[in-house]
Amino acid sequence: LQQADVQLSSKVDASGKTKAIVFSTTATLDVLEVERLCEAVGWPERPREKIKRALENSFMVATLYEVDIDPDTGNRGDTSKGRLIGCARATSDHVFNATLWDIIVDPAYQGVGLGKALVTSMIRSLLARDVANVTLFADQDVIPFYRALGFIIDPEGIKGMFLYPS
Amino acid sequence: LQQADVQLSSKVDASGKTKAIVFSTTATLDVLEVERLCEAVGWPERPREKIKRALENSFMVATLYEVDIDPDTGNRGDTSKGRLIGCARATSDHVFNATLWDIIVDPAYQGVGLGKALVTSMIRSLLARDVANVTLFADQDVIPFYRALGFIIDPEGIKGMFLYPS
Repeated sequence: LQQADVQLSSKVDASGKTKAIVFSTTATLDVLEVERLCEAVGWPERPREKIKRALENSFMVATLYEVDIDPDTGNRGDTSKGRLIGCARATSDHVFNATLWDIIVDPAYQGVGLGKALVTSMIRSLLARDVANVTLFADQDVIPFYRALGFIIDPEGIKGMFLYPS
Repeated sequence: LQQADVQLSSKVDASGKTKAIVFSTTATLDVLEVERLCEAVGWPERPREKIKRALENSFMVATLYEVDIDPDTGNRGDTSKGRLIGCARATSDHVFNATLWDIIVDPAYQGVGLGKALVTSMIRSLLARDVANVTLFADQDVIPFYRALGFIIDPEGIKGMFLYPS
């Protein structure tokens, strides 16, 4: 099930170029770009090969790209030529549950609603692929963000639990 | 990476037959047997086709079977000829996270440590496949059970969150 990219916004930047921000679940991710994002948000470094494998084995990898708009034709540049400014991924059984992981927006692009756009677009894509519900594990400081998107903490007393092998 | 079945216990039943309980991550599951288990523990019915797809798209499906031991040879019967008495599945990115779902033990076989054996064997299998950590969402009444197996609730304030689409 191929889904079309969705243009979220466009603007003219300081140099007079028109740029658009595009949501995609089908873009071919460059793992170096993902590493750059992880570093930008201050996450601990993880082996490149592992990031690559985790992306390959995720049910969905959602991305935000900033791309150029051609001033003459108005055509939008391909995500492969754009700049990755956000990503997130989901593991899933393709039916009952999808779980979101590693939701990142480039700090230089934060504060304008792109995190919200990334997650809501991703939820829409997951539901379009017939996943029944969406879960995640939220750090304390982002709980209000996810709550505002409709996520519920500990519904009916259900608790998220972690095992960290020693 | 094929992993061998693990015999957890054996006993002589009332009719004098020797039975063993076997943990497997490679058994071919009969979805009708899974439905029987779900019904036995009182879960709401789910479409068979969906259960089938979710099992197919899980990273790991762990099972407990009761199988016969041949009285003459001492050989253990194949799981395909045994009785499914427990199962669980995990979604995963194959690297960083695995999440356990739908952990069931047949009520007729509960109370003798098989739930614990199922989950600990499954964790061992996940770690053997190089998954870094294991998560789950626990109903209130089974939190002490998972805590005893080393699972931590809300580590560092991380919260499990659910979105149920309306």
